Amino acid sequence: MGNSFGKLFRLTTFGESHGKALGAIVEGCPAGLELDEDLIRLEMQRRKPGQSKITTQRKEEDEFQILSGVFEGKTTGTPIGIVIQNSDQKSKDYAHIADKFRPSHADYTYFEKYGIRDYRGGGRSSARETAARVAGGAIAKQFLKSKGITIQAFVSQVGDLILDSDYSKFNLELAEENIVRCPDPEMADRMISLIDAVRLERDTIGGVVTCVIKNTPAGLGEPVFDRLHAELGKAMLSINAVKGFEYGSGFEGVKMKGSQHNDTFVQEDGRVHTLTNHSGGIQGGISNGEDIYFRVAFKPVATIMQDQESLNEAGETVIVSGKGRHDPCVVPRAVPIVEAMAALVLADYLLLSKSNKLADI
Amino acid sequence: MGNSFGKLFRLTTFGESHGKALGAIVEGCPAGLELDEDLIRLEMQRRKPGQSKITTQRKEEDEFQILSGVFEGKTTGTPIGIVIQNSDQKSKDYAHIADKFRPSHADYTYFEKYGIRDYRGGGRSSARETAARVAGGAIAKQFLKSKGITIQAFVSQVGDLILDSDYSKFNLELAEENIVRCPDPEMADRMISLIDAVRLERDTIGGVVTCVIKNTPAGLGEPVFDRLHAELGKAMLSINAVKGFEYGSGFEGVKMKGSQHNDTFVQEDGRVHTLTNHSGGIQGGISNGEDIYFRVAFKPVATIMQDQESLNEAGETVIVSGKGRHDPCVVPRAVPIVEAMAALVLADYLLLSKSNKLADI
Amino acid sequence: MGNSFGKLFRLTTFGESHGKALGAIVEGCPAGLELDEDLIRLEMQRRKPGQSKITTQRKEEDEFQILSGVFEGKTTGTPIGIVIQNSDQKSKDYAHIADKFRPSHADYTYFEKYGIRDYRGGGRSSARETAARVAGGAIAKQFLKSKGITIQAFVSQVGDLILDSDYSKFNLELAEENIVRCPDPEMADRMISLIDAVRLERDTIGGVVTCVIKNTPAGLGEPVFDRLHAELGKAMLSINAVKGFEYGSGFEGVKMKGSQHNDTFVQEDGRVHTLTNHSGGIQGGISNGEDIYFRVAFKPVATIMQDQESLNEAGETVIVSGKGRHDPCVVPRAVPIVEAMAALVLADYLLLSKSNKLADI
Amino acid sequence: MGNSFGKLFRLTTFGESHGKALGAIVEGCPAGLELDEDLIRLEMQRRKPGQSKITTQRKEEDEFQILSGVFEGKTTGTPIGIVIQNSDQKSKDYAHIADKFRPSHADYTYFEKYGIRDYRGGGRSSARETAARVAGGAIAKQFLKSKGITIQAFVSQVGDLILDSDYSKFNLELAEENIVRCPDPEMADRMISLIDAVRLERDTIGGVVTCVIKNTPAGLGEPVFDRLHAELGKAMLSINAVKGFEYGSGFEGVKMKGSQHNDTFVQEDGRVHTLTNHSGGIQGGISNGEDIYFRVAFKPVATIMQDQESLNEAGETVIVSGKGRHDPCVVPRAVPIVEAMAALVLADYLLLSKSNKLADI
Repeated sequence: MGNSFGKLFRLTTFGESHGKALGAIVEGCPAGLELDEDLIRLEMQRRKPGQSKITTQRKEEDEFQILSGVFEGKTTGTPIGIVIQNSDQKSKDYAHIADKFRPSHADYTYFEKYGIRDYRGGGRSSARETAARVAGGAIAKQFLKSKGITIQAFVSQVGDLILDSDYSKFNLELAEENIVRCPDPEMADRMISLIDAVRLERDTIGGVVTCVIKNTPAGLGEPVFDRLHAELGKAMLSINAVKGFEYGSGFEGVKMKGSQHNDTFVQEDGRVHTLTNHSGGIQGGISNGEDIYFRVAFKPVATIMQDQESLNEAGETVIVSGKGRHDPCVVPRAVPIVEAMAALVLADYLLLSKSNKLADI
Repeated sequence: MGNSFGKLFRLTTFGESHGKALGAIVEGCPAGLELDEDLIRLEMQRRKPGQSKITTQRKEEDEFQILSGVFEGKTTGTPIGIVIQNSDQKSKDYAHIADKFRPSHADYTYFEKYGIRDYRGGGRSSARETAARVAGGAIAKQFLKSKGITIQAFVSQVGDLILDSDYSKFNLELAEENIVRCPDPEMADRMISLIDAVRLERDTIGGVVTCVIKNTPAGLGEPVFDRLHAELGKAMLSINAVKGFEYGSGFEGVKMKGSQHNDTFVQEDGRVHTLTNHSGGIQGGISNGEDIYFRVAFKPVATIMQDQESLNEAGETVIVSGKGRHDPCVVPRAVPIVEAMAALVLADYLLLSKSNKLADI
Repeated sequence: MGNSFGKLFRLTTFGESHGKALGAIVEGCPAGLELDEDLIRLEMQRRKPGQSKITTQRKEEDEFQILSGVFEGKTTGTPIGIVIQNSDQKSKDYAHIADKFRPSHADYTYFEKYGIRDYRGGGRSSARETAARVAGGAIAKQFLKSKGITIQAFVSQVGDLILDSDYSKFNLELAEENIVRCPDPEMADRMISLIDAVRLERDTIGGVVTCVIKNTPAGLGEPVFDRLHAELGKAMLSINAVKGFEYGSGFEGVKMKGSQHNDTFVQEDGRVHTLTNHSGGIQGGISNGEDIYFRVAFKPVATIMQDQESLNEAGETVIVSGKGRHDPCVVPRAVPIVEAMAALVLADYLLLSKSNKLADI
Repeated sequence: MGNSFGKLFRLTTFGESHGKALGAIVEGCPAGLELDEDLIRLEMQRRKPGQSKITTQRKEEDEFQILSGVFEGKTTGTPIGIVIQNSDQKSKDYAHIADKFRPSHADYTYFEKYGIRDYRGGGRSSARETAARVAGGAIAKQFLKSKGITIQAFVSQVGDLILDSDYSKFNLELAEENIVRCPDPEMADRMISLIDAVRLERDTIGGVVTCVIKNTPAGLGEPVFDRLHAELGKAMLSINAVKGFEYGSGFEGVKMKGSQHNDTFVQEDGRVHTLTNHSGGIQGGISNGEDIYFRVAFKPVATIMQDQESLNEAGETVIVSGKGRHDPCVVPRAVPIVEAMAALVLADYLLLSKSNKLADI
């Protein structure tokens, strides 16, 4: 339980940080899609460690291999199995924390839940698992793109540096042109400086990723429990280090009055639009055709390069020393993960919408 | 798809605002639980309209009947079917909006999705559906209580009136002693005044509900996708009018450094605790035994007692006039709904945790 | 777990034999279907007790009420909730077996599983639950009929009276013209005589129901685990008293050689057909467009009008006396249940097939 | 959809006959199980081709690698990912049937469903996929064995050679001592001769596998739809070439009267037993603690070493020539597959049963 995501378009992952390999199985991708492996590779490059001075300097090549589900370059409708090898990891690196519970990691909770844990690099709880999500999401993205739907995420906050929430003011494509993935070059520079300063303090800091989805047809969402934003929220909250999710007007919308918040319907370009979009493109849990946008809060990474007091499995007080190469701020590398999970939700809900009306069957 | 919630402990609901009845089916409640119908009734009273001057003045009696799954006062392990009659509703009340799309409601999206919609009172998209959730959640709550787990929600924000986020400063039981359900009596008075003022403006306003879960055992959660907080987030986001969810340090935690944010493990009372609880009782998606707490943002209700411009099904510009009796602020009545959904998640995850370890089978 | 069937087109049932009511919730029926309540009523009449001298003489009116999901005569895409009242049942009738385990009933196993059981009439394990299936299946049938797919079941064996297995020799519509539901009038008479004789012996006897599905499009089925016939098999085996399922050539096909068994493809009427149909319309778990047919074995009903030795909950030897009005042979009334379950499978798989090809999305 | 089996203990497979590799992902195996890789290897040896003169002479080494979920020899509760390499397969072998529909194979139906198919060796529809099932089932078997539950299958029919249905007459362990896997040595010889004769005719023949499960605790099964035998039936019907399933008295039981068929409860060895076991160890869909037994019918393999008339994708009449090395009778190699699927069902239902009673939580 818990290793699969989606109903019709479905991703299952397996693998631990320091096991032999990670895996991603994508079920339900419609047959006949021309799959571009380079686009998968590109997404994995965006996530991989060591890509800049503000990410961990660990080297992971993230070479993947598609084992099934693709024939002569096209998807066949059968499950697409992908394996991502873990390059040679030195397990002895982790002997010093083998029986220690690192603060605000999952060491203690996995131990309580299972009575046993693979302590090497966090095992299954490591964010390394998200490599499999990005691989699977890259397939979802290609499927969506074939239907005109695009997804773009970017960094909108680092610590207390907050980008203007009106994303229409920015050219979102600029986000990929700097190492922090913020579409405002000036703000990007400030964010990079802040992360770098935190890194030198041997500390970490949190951030926010905003995601915008364009060209979603109206009608996607499965009320009452599987509302489109509820599934998006779950998808985001399932990513390591995420503490919050809001869409449309979000927590700020709380302060508004209904007369300000309501989005007026208008006819435009031969179809229904809304003048404002406080709804975030979703009304009653169903897409209305406007941009879908949401914000995802990431806490500061728990691994810091400092000594911390903690407990070991025997209940004794111990010192946990920060070692290795870790991210001072996770959001630049989280951007493709947010996009991947969003793509998986949209792909799934697009398929689900195909049986809503009798006339469509 | 979308009308059930949960894997082992599972709620399914059916019913429209102005249909004959609503229904709640609870599957997976362990056999042998003494079920107190009065406690279900109590929860439904907390949700029902017309309970105070700051809620809608609509009258709904919300009488329910248990049709199955209980024998001689105890649950039998078979599904518990509950029907909640809709008292005589005047459908003609809705003729004036039969073909109009009310702004920021689900009228347009349901129409796009299904090509047909029950326009009476919002049909399936009406918050009336949450009555079935409260009934189901009241059963989950009783199950959890038999295992020592308690859930308490309260109003922590109305408009820009924000309660101190440190809930330990308040006696949470006081929340039920005022009509806005805020545990700080002074703040409660201010919130009530604000809502009343907004009501007189024929407008609405948003709010936040905070929820605290105590005595959860360590080990609940199903990573990687079904993290405990991810499922709680989905549960909350599935409630009408919710725009955001955060747990533990939430969006504010973004601004912290890792060295501040990490929760130090200590031994206390013979078991592992943390000195702080920025984690919100969940680490790596699994409960650690500390209090679980989270915040849920509700937008201002879309129905306002004012004229608004909109479109009808033919794409023509029309005026939608606010009629009827609606809530100026939804959060006081949302408190039991938040608790119900939280109870459903916890009940489900408690059952799921029973097969984690070989020694437990 | 276990009270729902189907993925996209999904039936959930609740209710016990002697509880207040049964319920059926149908999710996923596409919106816009004109629903004929009389056709639901007709199916329930075919299942109901007391319809002839060879069925139980119990009276159950099986009045049902649709509570949701239908608006102005059409399905809206929201869940269709149906309640079937249990007419006034005398619970004291069952006091004599309250702590006894009836042989080959579910009394003992429910008690072991749940530690508590509603002993009145078998509680949840009673075949009365199938009334809810027939109601739900009647909706699936109407959906399928709108797409040209028809389902017809009939009795093909009672005890050792076995109808010729080549169903094409019979006018299947004749099955509804006699009380045993066998399409061969002469065989029907013999079957009726046999059942009547068994009834007079205060005993019961088994039988087989054959089901034929016509006009299924090619392409329905979800290999590898959810093959179309695997889901049909599960559906049938979930019906009370069923002991076996075979499709196409079935157990007899075991004796054949590959060269005899293989169905030759031919072009006919502008589409692909097979000369023979040992495959039963399903190849590799996917429909091929030919008739789907299968046989379902029902054991003799466990309730006999004789004294039997057994145990009570205390482990003491007791006598269980047959009382009440029970079916001497269950297959005549099982015909509409088999059809209902088949319709649910086909409806579900038809919806699932809508997202197989990229070109269809 | 369709590539996973099970709810809590869950197997997902991927891979095609001639793709790079097959995969099996096992979720939900309780943590702390000592996993013996040799036992997995042993099961795969029992299934692999080329093991005797009556099976295909193809060579497949079926080397597998466990990529995750096991740490220091024990399961950790995280998904166990297994990859089975496909050794170098000559794809050109299949050029001659690239656009032809082989009779009674899945070529036509996959083409209709997906509009594209991997024609090499049947692609996903090949029985090679069952190698992944056997690997996953071998883990389930070890879990069950740790709880005392054992599963043994054997060949009980080949063509019209039928073993006495009373399995208690045989020492079932003898089944593994001959190449046809029949526990009666004399019958085994006759079966081997028959298969050999059919092979020389360049033809194939069907058979039946019987499976016996011992030491199941009472209480396993999830009525009403997920009855234990319904899930076992689905599991078996999901295996390639299966045409029928019956448990306990099965189709023969149809001819019995209730007074003969009912199993009398008796107290023995301090617990409840039944004198006979026509119920096949399952009553009302729930295990009663007696032996569970069932029979599975396999059709004659569709690939025969003869020329057959058929169609190609263009609708033209073509000749399909039998080539390669195929099984003249599939049942000897199906024995471990039946056991694997049975083990998966039992493991899953054992876990599901852990939350039935309040006192167990």
